[in-house]
This record gives sequence, C-alpha cells and structure tokens, in this order.
Amino acid sequence: MTDLERISGPRDLDEMTPEELDTLAADIRAFLVREVSRTGGHLGPNLGVVELTMALHRVFDSPSDTLVFDTGHQSYVHKILTGRSDFSALRVKDGLSGYPSRAESPHDVVENSHASTSLSWAEGIASGYRLRGEDRHVVAVIGDGALTGGMAWEALNNIASEKDLPLVIVVNDNERSYAPTIGGLADHLAMLRTNRQYEQVLDWGKDKLTRTPVVGRTAYQAFHSMKKGAKDFWAPQGMFEDLGIKYLGPVDGHDLGALEQALRRAKAFGGPVLVHCITQKGRGYDHAVDDVADQFHAVGKINPETGLPLEIAGRSWTDEFSDEMVALGAEREDVVAITAAMMMPVGLQPFADAYPHRIFDVGIAEQHATTMAAGLAYAGLHPVVAIYATFLNRAFDQLLMDCAMHRAGVTFVLDRSGVTGPDGASHHGMWDMSLAAIVPGLRLAAPRDGQQIRRAVREAVDLTDGPTVVRFPKGSVADPIEAVATHEGLDVLLGDPDVDPDVLVVSVGAMAGTSTTVAEKLAAEGLTTLVVDPRWVLPVPEALVALAARSGRVAVLEDNSVAGGVGSEVARALQDGGVGVPAHRFGLPKEFIQHASRGQVLEAVGLTPEPIVEELLRSR
Amino acid sequence: MTDLERISGPRDLDEMTPEELDTLAADIRAFLVREVSRTGGHLGPNLGVVELTMALHRVFDSPSDTLVFDTGHQSYVHKILTGRSDFSALRVKDGLSGYPSRAESPHDVVENSHASTSLSWAEGIASGYRLRGEDRHVVAVIGDGALTGGMAWEALNNIASEKDLPLVIVVNDNERSYAPTIGGLADHLAMLRTNRQYEQVLDWGKDKLTRTPVVGRTAYQAFHSMKKGAKDFWAPQGMFEDLGIKYLGPVDGHDLGALEQALRRAKAFGGPVLVHCITQKGRGYDHAVDDVADQFHAVGKINPETGLPLEIAGRSWTDEFSDEMVALGAEREDVVAITAAMMMPVGLQPFADAYPHRIFDVGIAEQHATTMAAGLAYAGLHPVVAIYATFLNRAFDQLLMDCAMHRAGVTFVLDRSGVTGPDGASHHGMWDMSLAAIVPGLRLAAPRDGQQIRRAVREAVDLTDGPTVVRFPKGSVADPIEAVATHEGLDVLLGDPDVDPDVLVVSVGAMAGTSTTVAEKLAAEGLTTLVVDPRWVLPVPEALVALAARSGRVAVLEDNSVAGGVGSEVARALQDGGVGVPAHRFGLPKEFIQHASRGQVLEAVGLTPEPIVEELLRSR
Repeated sequence: MTDLERISGPRDLDEMTPEELDTLAADIRAFLVREVSRTGGHLGPNLGVVELTMALHRVFDSPSDTLVFDTGHQSYVHKILTGRSDFSALRVKDGLSGYPSRAESPHDVVENSHASTSLSWAEGIASGYRLRGEDRHVVAVIGDGALTGGMAWEALNNIASEKDLPLVIVVNDNERSYAPTIGGLADHLAMLRTNRQYEQVLDWGKDKLTRTPVVGRTAYQAFHSMKKGAKDFWAPQGMFEDLGIKYLGPVDGHDLGALEQALRRAKAFGGPVLVHCITQKGRGYDHAVDDVADQFHAVGKINPETGLPLEIAGRSWTDEFSDEMVALGAEREDVVAITAAMMMPVGLQPFADAYPHRIFDVGIAEQHATTMAAGLAYAGLHPVVAIYATFLNRAFDQLLMDCAMHRAGVTFVLDRSGVTGPDGASHHGMWDMSLAAIVPGLRLAAPRDGQQIRRAVREAVDLTDGPTVVRFPKGSVADPIEAVATHEGLDVLLGDPDVDPDVLVVSVGAMAGTSTTVAEKLAAEGLTTLVVDPRWVLPVPEALVALAARSGRVAVLEDNSVAGGVGSEVARALQDGGVGVPAHRFGLPKEFIQHASRGQVLEAVGLTPEPIVEELLRSR
Repeated sequence: MTDLERISGPRDLDEMTPEELDTLAADIRAFLVREVSRTGGHLGPNLGVVELTMALHRVFDSPSDTLVFDTGHQSYVHKILTGRSDFSALRVKDGLSGYPSRAESPHDVVENSHASTSLSWAEGIASGYRLRGEDRHVVAVIGDGALTGGMAWEALNNIASEKDLPLVIVVNDNERSYAPTIGGLADHLAMLRTNRQYEQVLDWGKDKLTRTPVVGRTAYQAFHSMKKGAKDFWAPQGMFEDLGIKYLGPVDGHDLGALEQALRRAKAFGGPVLVHCITQKGRGYDHAVDDVADQFHAVGKINPETGLPLEIAGRSWTDEFSDEMVALGAEREDVVAITAAMMMPVGLQPFADAYPHRIFDVGIAEQHATTMAAGLAYAGLHPVVAIYATFLNRAFDQLLMDCAMHRAGVTFVLDRSGVTGPDGASHHGMWDMSLAAIVPGLRLAAPRDGQQIRRAVREAVDLTDGPTVVRFPKGSVADPIEAVATHEGLDVLLGDPDVDPDVLVVSVGAMAGTSTTVAEKLAAEGLTTLVVDPRWVLPVPEALVALAARSGRVAVLEDNSVAGGVGSEVARALQDGGVGVPAHRFGLPKEFIQHASRGQVLEAVGLTPEPIVEELLRSR
C-alpha cells in the first residue's frame, strides 16, 4: 500500500512525519504524471501545487474551513487528499470532473473554470460565516495570472476594508496563467520575489531540492533557473499593503514547512492576509518544466516517459484561423490582434511572431480586451479579438456598449464554441450566439469548414461599421463541404433552391454534416428538402426569410443553447416578415451540461440526425 | 456678451488672461446652475470639473488630441468649451445629450455611461495612434469611484507595461462616485491626499478661494471641510507607482494654474502618467455642496435659489421595494443586501440604516457583487443584489456561472428597467430579460405595481435553489391593478379565463395598463380577449402554454428588446409544447434608443396600444 492509498481524507495528514510527507508528495507527483498521461488533463498546474495543497489541508480543516480554488484546474491534489484518488475516468463521462464539483465532495465549493472569481466567493463566504457567528476560516487560492482579471481587483478593494474578516488569500505565483503573466502586476510580483530579504536566502535549501521527486533529470537541475524561496516573514510592502491588505511572503511554495508556518500565521491573524507563494508549474516533471510554451498546462494523452502526445492531432479549426491571420497581416497593416492570456491556444502565436508590434496580450481581461479594441478601431485599425466562446460572457457589456453602440469595426473570433467536451459545464461555448443575437448591428458568421473560416475572417475585417463575430468549435476541422449552389448569397449544401421544399434545413456552422444527413433521411421518407448554410447567420438574411416563405417548415440546427441564438432570431424574422410556416429550433438544451466527449454530449441531448428527423416527421 | 458666449471652441481659451479665465469659470458655474435647474441633469459632477476641463482644453488640442470622459456625465463643461452652449433642450428629445455624443461633435469620443471604461478606450486609442505614427495625445478623465471597477484595473495593469505610450490618466478624486467611494483604493487615495508634502501647503490659496464664484455662502466657507490642494510635484509613491505608472499629484483641481502645470508636465513625459486631481463635487453651489447624500449628483428641475425640487416626486417603484426590504429585514435575519455604489438610488438606504451589518456597498463592481452574493448564499444567507437593470450587463458571466450553475439562492432586484428616458441609449434597461432568458434555472418576476413588487420580492427570497430576478421601471409606481381572477397561478387582468379567447394578451410587468387597453380596443372590434399577467414570466409557466393552446393567437407585451426576452421564450415554449398558434412579440426594437421621455420613446417605437392593436387586427 502506497502512502497515497492510505489517504482517505485530509485529517490523515495530521500525524504524518516530515519524511512521510515528503514521500507522499513524491507519490502524488508520480501518480499525477502516470494518471494524467493516460487521460489527459491539467498536468502542469497540479504538479506545481502539491506541497501547497498539502499545507492547506494540514493547516485548515476542510470542509469546516472552506477552500476556494480560483479557476479550479489545479484541484487534482485537493481531490486526492480528500479521498478521491480514482483518476481512471478523469474528465470522462460520469468520471471525475477536472474541476471542483459539489456533486463529488463536500470539500468542493466553486466549480467554474472562469478565472478571477475566488476572492469574491471567499469574501462572500467569510462574511456569511461571520454574520452567522460561525468560527470558520476561508482560503482562496488564486494564481498570479488570475489576479490580472478585473473582478479580482474589485474583490481586493473590498476585502481591504474588512479588517477583521478571517480570510486568507494564497497567491500561487508561478509567473504564468496559461502564458507568462503580463502587466504592471507581474512586474510588481517580480519585485516582491526579488526583494532584499528574499535574495538573502538564495542559497537555502539545496539539499532539500535534491530530494524532490522527479521524473527524468534531477529536480535541482530542473529548478536551476528559478529563484529559490525565502522563509516567510512579515514585512509591510508593496501595492497589497498600499491597498490595505496584510502581505506575507514570499514563501517557497515547495517547502512544506515554510508553507505551513506562513499559513498558520495567516490563520491566526484575524483579518485578511495575502500569502505570496512561489511555485513552479510542472514541478518535478522535466518534460513539463522544460516546455517553454505552457509547461504542460493541459495535455492530451501522453507517453509519460517522453512527454510526447500519444494521439497525433489533426489540423484544427484554430489552425485555419491562425494561418489566415498571418496572411491577412501581410496584406493589411491595419489588422491587429488581441488575446486574453491565450496566445497559443487561440492560434495567434504565428501572427505575434510575424508582427510583434501588432499583437496585444492583455492578461485574463476580456473586458479590457473588448473595450481596448473599440479604442484601436477608433484610431483607424481593425482589431481581431480572439478568445474562447465561453469567455465572451465576461465582455457582454463592452461588446454591446463600447463596440456595437459606437459602431466599432472589431472582429471577435470565438474558438471552442459549441460542445467542448472534457472541461464541462463552464467551458461549453453554448451562450455566445444568444449573447450576440441581443446586440444591435452585430454580424455573426459560423463557418462550416476551414475554407469558410478563412473566407469569414477575411470578410469580417472588411466590415468597419460595427462588431463582427466569427465562431467555430474545438478540435479537428471538419472536412470541406462544398456548396452545390448559391442562392441569393446563401450557400446551398443539398437540394435545388428553385424547388419549394417541404423542409428547409438551416445549418449553422459545424452542424453542416448533421444537416445534410438529416435532409437525406427526410428525403428517404419522401420529403423534398433543401439545406442552406447562410454563413452569416446574424442578423438573419432576408433571403432566408424569403426561402422559408416557400417552404413547408423550417428547421434550424445550431450548437448553441436553444434559449436565444440563431433559431430564436430566425423565428422572430419569420414573424416580422409575416411568414407563418413552423420554425423548429434544434440546439443545446437550456441547462448546464456536464463533461463528456463532444459526441457523447450531442447524443445525450439529441442533437444528432435520428432524433431531429424523428421530431420533424412527428410534426409533419 | 458674456465670456461664455465668446467661446466657440477650445482654442478660444488660448489667449485669455488669468483674470478672464477666472471670470469664465464663474460664468460657466452660473450657467450650469441656471440651465440645469431648468432641465434637470448631472449638476454636482459638472460643477466639480470646471477648472479641470478648462485646463484640459488649454493644454491639449482636441480633437487632434483625444479626451475620453469616463462615465461621461461630467462632460457638460466640455460641451460648453467645444461650442455647445445651448442647454435649453438638455436630455430632451432631439436636444443635447447628457453624455458625450459623436453625433454632436468631433470632440466627443466615448458615449456610454457605464463606468470604468475610459482607461481601456484610452489605451486602445493611444496604441492605435502610435502604430499609425500619429503624434496625438490621449487623456482619460476617470473618477475615484470608477477606479473601483475591475476593468479600470485590467487597463492599469496593461498601461503600466507600455512605458512609452503618451497617455495621461486624470484621476478626478472627489471621494465619491454617486456615494462616497469605498474600499482599500479609497483609503489609499486618502493617504495620498493627506501625505506630508500636501499638508505642508494647507494654508495656500485662501485669497484665491475667496474669489471663487458662488451662489449663496462664500466658497471658502463651503470649502472649509475639504483638504486644500497642494502644488503638484513629482514623487514616486503608492500603489500606482508600485504598478509601474508614473504618479503626479495631488493637484488642487480648482487651481487652474496648478492643473495646467501638472498637465503640461504629464503631456511632456512621453509615457503613461497618472495625474491625481482633488476636486469638490458641487463646487461653488452651496446647495449642492451641503447635500450630504450625493451633492446634487443628478437633479430634476429645481429652484436655483433654494435648490429645492420644482416637481414633487410621487411614490416610486423604488420606494415599494425599499419599504419591503426593511420589513423583510425585520422578519428574516438571513436576508442581506448588496449595492454597487448606489445605496440611495436603488432604495437600500433605509435597510442599511436599520441593519448596518447586513448591507454591503461594494463600489462600482457588479461582477464582485454578484459572485460575492453567491458566496453569501453558500454560507446560508439570502442576498438581495439591487442594481440598475442596464448594469446587469456587467455581471452576466457571474450570474450564469457563479449563481445559476451553483444554484445559489440570490435575488437580483433590477431598478430602472425598460425605457428610462433622459439618460439615453446606455441607460435603458432593455437587455436584462434577454440575458436572464439565457440563464438555466433562473426565475424572473416583473411586478406590475407596488403590491406586486412586495409580493415578488417576498417570494424571491423564499427561493433558495437558484437565482431570481425582480425587475421594475424607473419613476412613479403604477396605480394598483387588481387581478379580476387567477387561473392556474396566472393573474387575470381582463376577460374570462374559462372562455377561449381570440387573442391572449400576455402582459409583462409595467405593460399591464397598455395590455388591458389593447384588449379593450380589440374587444371593441368584436374579438374575445383575455389578459394575463404571469407575474413570474421566466421560465414560461406551463399554464400559460395551456392557455395559449386554447387561444386564437398570443401577443406578448414587454418593455425589453424584442431580441430574446419573454416573447422569445414564450414562442419557444409554444413550439416545445406543440402549440401552433401564432405568437406576436411586442417590445423595444433591437437598436440603440436615444434620450427622450419614456412616453416619447414608447410612442416612437410603437409600444403603445394603437399600433399594437393595428398589427393584431392586420394579422387577424
């Protein structure tokens, strides 16, 4: 029985000797590398917080005390220490979530993967406990990257006023979010890391480091370029103290003793305390540490010995956008790009390499990205803001007020739209078209394949009198689907546009394959069908309304929530046009959809050809 | 001819002598008091920025240089100095906007009244000018209150990295937004205001102050409790410098010479500079200065001599909510309230006075307010978040992810929903039901009168398994509208629910009066009508779908955008229920609606009985 298997809950850590704890940390790292290699997942972040999570559970008494993990993808160690060490189905349907999950454990509180929320949660929970007279501590674990998000600052500003609120803020400073953390805050954290007291103990702990468990090279070698942590100390300094929050640190985030000492002091303080911990993403696994791009932030299935992917990824939707941006950049000097701390995942790295003065990485700051883009447009440029679809939620007001109301020529490229799969409810890109449909003057394109991405992005940057959105899914790009004809600007994917169809199938983006299959099955039942892809689906094209008027019924297929979105706008356009034919909306249900593969989710919610055909035949 | 009438543009200020400028400042204040007394408007904020705006226009060359006013309600002086001194129709249909307006002047850039955006706009514009090789300066004027908003921090974090970006951030520090500014930032600004160098010159300027034009008492008396401004100086200090932004100040915001000197230094610096100006809201008008609530932040028509309102406001929708909260607070210790810097306008002051430990003013921070509420709910309390409907835009992601996904029992009370009138496009509360309709598990009530507000709020705080929204309009509360019957939980306002109607009118909240008028007019045309108010309109009640199935057609009336919202969800519910009757949506058009009275707007967009009846008869 390994030490790891002996852990059924955090209190099992209480009686362990320092040596046993060291062994446990080593076992956890080996376990993470072995297990996450098999399933894929957030490897780098979790390797970085092994000692920190152990220290948290030794000092605080979860679930009586409350631990809030910002973003939540660094909660694997927490899961292990709270009795969840079956990782065999991590991020797989019905298996362990890749984030905290209340359904899994009372130790889990905040489930969402959207960054920078933990301090607000923590202030609310701590304030609630205090009002109810409950003597419980609250700890928020937040990365330096998440601190660049505005709502973290809103929370800090408030927490600073609550002088007697027992709230511990652990800044897990690994100098990165996905990418290296940017901005004045990062510079300030660097200053704190390298201040005098910290530098004095640079030579500390060499023997300890050589004992850190590793895969591959020794930890000391891997660690050579990282500044080593000092013992903790109380010292008023820096902007956190200016704001009025007690600062403690920096603390070596891989020294369990130092971490525990700092956390015990913070716990005893009786007011808000920020504990600045220096950790190393990928710690203990050379392949991760050596990965300059993202230290194995999130991996697919890999060979643990080599760190190399086991599945060769095909060409992705992102690749198509990425290549086109480089081409556009060469043609048009006015095209600039903005990323919110996700340069590589959204495909902007090649553009950044080619045009380093025309790329802006603003940190985890979608609000700023969006309004800054409106400013760039005012100055005569055409910004392309590339973010994940689910994170557009964060910038709705800015999209509406700063971009649309000011008719700013800004293009939003939404990657990971639709069902994203293993990251679960907070990562599905199923709200973006509902939001976009609200915004006056906004035009949205949903490309069905790589060629259409290129075409849509190119058309979008030519539009200068309001915002545009181009949205596409995660993963391997669909095989090219050629239009058999065009009709009044609509791509016809199947059928004869001159024949009035029994069923007009309106395909949105990646639903093209499903749409044509549906039409073929309906045709087999004797119905005349026509499948069109309007490409630009918002606002609803007049030609589509005219076609609908000649059809028996209309079916809109989209991988967005059925609440709002394209189907809703088509129904409204038909009403406004006096077209009385029935309009059926097929999309994702208005609910939070748990993690599973894209195929499993679509199957579960009935967004596959068979149930769509059944419903259309039933209401014939 | 007064000095004021001599101003046709900012360059007219160039050749003025100090004495002429002092006279001009006096003329502007007298003009503002006289004109805004007649029309209503943001009086206090504009009286506070007379010298600051003059200094900005003397030092910078607008519109070649770009001035961005955060929130924008402090732009009246800017309007005067850029040749717009006809205030006779301020905030009135077809008259001068109460905010910057690109349609009015090339000197206006950012129109929206949503706070904390100016730094993002400014960074975007300045970056654009730099990329295009244009030598133009950009100035953002932001209040200390707006600095509590997270996106301002996102921008500061980025601006700090742009060491050579010619960008001047003017912090207009009057220690307030609407209400006194809160949090660690406010404390830090106070520290900067009271630092040693500043205190050294406390005695400066007495003779100058006595010359400040006033209405009523002398300015010096009025000014006695305010710390007096120091001459500007360069001194690295505080959190802004920690973040990496050059800090200059504090500067007396009513000393034109000091302001100009500081701004000229900032302009010459060649990188981002923050100029900290101390101003007094309401400056020069005693009635404003003496108003402890909000220094005449925004007034209706007033008697300029007495400062008293000319129109007695009746009982408002807000009053009904306000009273019920006090009553609920007495009954239930678990009910707590959150405001985002709007304690009085949203009616929470009486609750705050009665239960000072159960109120949270979080600053202009709707994101934090929303997620903190989820935390409070987790700890066993029931938070009521009271904000303006338009500002829910800022917290969509937090509403969706933190509240709804976590099934947090949080009640959002949205004041100023629907058409708000004189504040124009960015203040109309016409998006909230579209957003709410996207959120799984969210329940929304739209009360039609005061009694219904009380009932809805009371029902809302009893619901603990997900977020609720209660939304109502601005202004005088509607006369009570009694239900003639109830049918399966639906209030019947007119008609017999046992008779199948030709037209089922679904009334949402404040549309009750219009709905019954529509029904009466249709009845006069021989149609059988039934008017129901479901009270809880989201999710769409099953009983409503069943009634619709028995109706000839359905008309949904709501003062929300027709894109999304209740009409859209009713149409979807009918489709899901297999109910094929036509559903007509009547609401606000999907466009940005300019300022005008509520009645004028409703008339202009056709949300009045006659056009609704016409359309229903036409499609008969």
